[in-house]
Amino acid sequence: MKYPKSLIKLIEGFQMYPGIGPKTAERLAFFTIQKLSEEKIFSFSDSLKEAFLKIKKCKVCGNITENDVCDICIDSERENILMIVEAAKDVLVFEKTNQYNGKYHVLGGLISPLNGVSPEDINIKKIISRIEEEKIKEIILATSATIEGEMTALYIKNILADKGVFVSRIGYGLPAGGDIEYADEITLMKALEGRKKM
Amino acid sequence: MKYPKSLIKLIEGFQMYPGIGPKTAERLAFFTIQKLSEEKIFSFSDSLKEAFLKIKKCKVCGNITENDVCDICIDSERENILMIVEAAKDVLVFEKTNQYNGKYHVLGGLISPLNGVSPEDINIKKIISRIEEEKIKEIILATSATIEGEMTALYIKNILADKGVFVSRIGYGLPAGGDIEYADEITLMKALEGRKKM
Repeated sequence: MKYPKSLIKLIEGFQMYPGIGPKTAERLAFFTIQKLSEEKIFSFSDSLKEAFLKIKKCKVCGNITENDVCDICIDSERENILMIVEAAKDVLVFEKTNQYNGKYHVLGGLISPLNGVSPEDINIKKIISRIEEEKIKEIILATSATIEGEMTALYIKNILADKGVFVSRIGYGLPAGGDIEYADEITLMKALEGRKKM
Repeated sequence: MKYPKSLIKLIEGFQMYPGIGPKTAERLAFFTIQKLSEEKIFSFSDSLKEAFLKIKKCKVCGNITENDVCDICIDSERENILMIVEAAKDVLVFEKTNQYNGKYHVLGGLISPLNGVSPEDINIKKIISRIEEEKIKEIILATSATIEGEMTALYIKNILADKGVFVSRIGYGLPAGGDIEYADEITLMKALEGRKKM
């Protein structure tokens, strides 16, 4: 005996996602047909297509939006600072801090020779034209503290060297709640370098 | 800044599922719009509706099927043994062993006074009519070795007392690969009770 075809198709659908193996996919498929109402299933089904059809990249910054230009780029009260981030997700992360009122620029990836991602493959070129058009006075490089993140930050810093713009990199050090006992040496070294007068 | 509405709706959709929290739902929604092809998204979306519309319970045994009667109940070569299981999932689990060629009866739940599930709420009544109609000679009670599973097995055993059918319960003991050092006392006690001549 095998599962009905329509159930197998649904299980395979869930299995496309990262972190969802055969057992979990089966559990989710059974949950769908046994626990969810018709209304919820149809709404979820529609939302998959809708998200695909409606969401596009902002023409200015590369952030996700349902319009041509995203809410942040349209907002005239934002300061002329540009924070360079890897992905659209990172924009929301910084927005949630409520500490930043500048604009963003989403790279859509990081330079990674090992994975065949060169500077031309990500949204770097537009940074230069934005500096002029939007009279940007500071660029904050907010890529991750990984090899690819560092490499990308360094690359962008270099191409901006003669553009007359102040370039900064987000701070390094212990994360909030970080225990010195468990911190690795590079983090501690960077935390020492980044020490501040109390 | 918030996420576009269609993305929020998709995230909420994933969050309906057990074990999927806000962070995972976000990750899955982003994976959908950034990594999956239009074809795959549409196929997954359709499979949700399709599974809901096509899958129903077998009129005879309660197993899931796309037809009125499931493949197992229709199969005339199955022996006249009836294995009572909690859920449709369990049927496939036993089928995978290739050691059982009887039929099944899916309860769709277990008796659980604490959760307000009484014997009338699950598919018990039909067992008696099936015994007569299908000339069943043995009933195997294959519910879990939990309190609810035991209670349900005991209840069914009692109502079958005068039906002239042999009633058995699946074996207890150490699971395959089970380490005696880590087994609990009840399991060990049951394993002793269930010992066999070598």
